[in-house]
Amino acid sequence: MEYLVVYDVDTTTPAGERRLRQVAKVCEGYGLRVQKSVFEMTCMPAQLPRLRQTLTDIIDKTRDNVRLYRLQEGTLNSVERLGIAELAPHRGDHIL
Amino acid sequence: MEYLVVYDVDTTTPAGERRLRQVAKVCEGYGLRVQKSVFEMTCMPAQLPRLRQTLTDIIDKTRDNVRLYRLQEGTLNSVERLGIAELAPHRGDHIL
Repeated sequence: MEYLVVYDVDTTTPAGERRLRQVAKVCEGYGLRVQKSVFEMTCMPAQLPRLRQTLTDIIDKTRDNVRLYRLQEGTLNSVERLGIAELAPHRGDHIL
Repeated sequence: MEYLVVYDVDTTTPAGERRLRQVAKVCEGYGLRVQKSVFEMTCMPAQLPRLRQTLTDIIDKTRDNVRLYRLQEGTLNSVERLGIAELAPHRGDHIL
């Protein structure tokens, strides 16, 4: 399964800065960072609930914004890129 | 057609700040902003080349990073959301 995870974490407080780092760190376990707050993921269906739960536990539900887009298989290898954007070197399902 | 456009514009210079504002403004003409640098778009196939060209003309190709993800029809109405993320009120193809 291919997913795109994007987030806006409110970093106006030190706690927010910490949440931002935690969200990024969790996402690094599931996929590849392609922008500051955008991760591409190739993962197994069984991994999704844990990712969702972990992110839910980290974020401030009244301040932070996380969106998970399910992509059609093959999207990540054909994403349109402008400027310095590059294809991310995914290699099948990411193993945690 | 549903698209997700995400961007990282290098804002370490005043020119970069200006490019960031320009990119956002262009994207506002095609879709709805759902995060600081994430736009959801529902547009007609014929609109895509113009969007791509306009963004290409604005960005600094050696510093900025723009990615356009083609989504399956219906993705925008079923995106998974955590925290304050909300469904964006798309209403068919956005008319420019």
